Amino acid sequence: MERGGRILILGIDPGLAATGWGVIESAAGRMRYVDGGIIRTSPDALHISRLDEIRRGVDNAARRFRPQMAGVERVFANVNGKSSMSLGEARGAAIAALLGCDIGIVEISALQIKKSITGAGRADKKRVADMIPLLLQDSPPKPGADLSDALACALTAAPLSRSFVGNESHFRLPPIRKTRRRVRR
Amino acid sequence: MERGGRILILGIDPGLAATGWGVIESAAGRMRYVDGGIIRTSPDALHISRLDEIRRGVDNAARRFRPQMAGVERVFANVNGKSSMSLGEARGAAIAALLGCDIGIVEISALQIKKSITGAGRADKKRVADMIPLLLQDSPPKPGADLSDALACALTAAPLSRSFVGNESHFRLPPIRKTRRRVRR
Repeated sequence: MERGGRILILGIDPGLAATGWGVIESAAGRMRYVDGGIIRTSPDALHISRLDEIRRGVDNAARRFRPQMAGVERVFANVNGKSSMSLGEARGAAIAALLGCDIGIVEISALQIKKSITGAGRADKKRVADMIPLLLQDSPPKPGADLSDALACALTAAPLSRSFVGNESHFRLPPIRKTRRRVRR
Repeated sequence: MERGGRILILGIDPGLAATGWGVIESAAGRMRYVDGGIIRTSPDALHISRLDEIRRGVDNAARRFRPQMAGVERVFANVNGKSSMSLGEARGAAIAALLGCDIGIVEISALQIKKSITGAGRADKKRVADMIPLLLQDSPPKPGADLSDALACALTAAPLSRSFVGNESHFRLPPIRKTRRRVRR
């Protein structure tokens, strides 16, 4: 939500076992860490319950912070059909939760993240993680892998926050405000 | 919702391009078709928009009919990681929509459907589709493939509606009723 030029951006790194989420604040070109965490689900839990944990966790973060937009990591399918399916389900549940809160979503690829955070498309995960505390004021000094990825997603999405364009990677839902009337044409 | 011994069951056959949904009524061992349809999404649409269509379509059906439970087809991942991922996302969005409506979900495998509808685990899709109008009063005479699968899912889920058990394939959310007080133990 925009508050005097400040924008909150939620980054999501979805996964069935661990979904990272991180909220950053962008104000006057400066990025600040607001909050973040990991939604962990147990492999012993029912499959549907795990998806429900993810859905609820993302919904909680979205309702608590009311971010202006969300960046969700777009993961490429790997050769294992079963793990691709599980990852897809986790993504679907997380994205549905964001859509249910009327939050604009931008999908961010791993390549975009690496380029945006380190300047190099071939950077490894550790180098991305090491950059987070340097780019993000008040960041935890050593965010874990899932939180790093979520924050990297939010940081990469941030420059897009004022100028979504209507293509696959930059997408914003029409801003529906229940309290505001829309002018008829 | 149970209404004088009648139970409404929603069947969902998820897919990114087409998600079938069908509502049946089970009363005194008889099954009746109530309503159904296909949520189609365009391959030209934004990926997130397609997931939103699925989420909204399932949410609409769930809110309109308030089924007591939902049966969602459990699809096995195929060798193509990308299509497994898309299918997973569609499933995740559909399941999240049902969970958001506090509807108990049972996952139904293709094998369970075939056995339950035709008595044979090796039956083909056509044979399942041909059985639907015979098993379901007021059914469309020739439901298409996606609607057939959704109705087959609902029919297979129906016997479980009064006796969910807590395992992977039979799962019910704790019945949360906001208007009803729970007795403390």
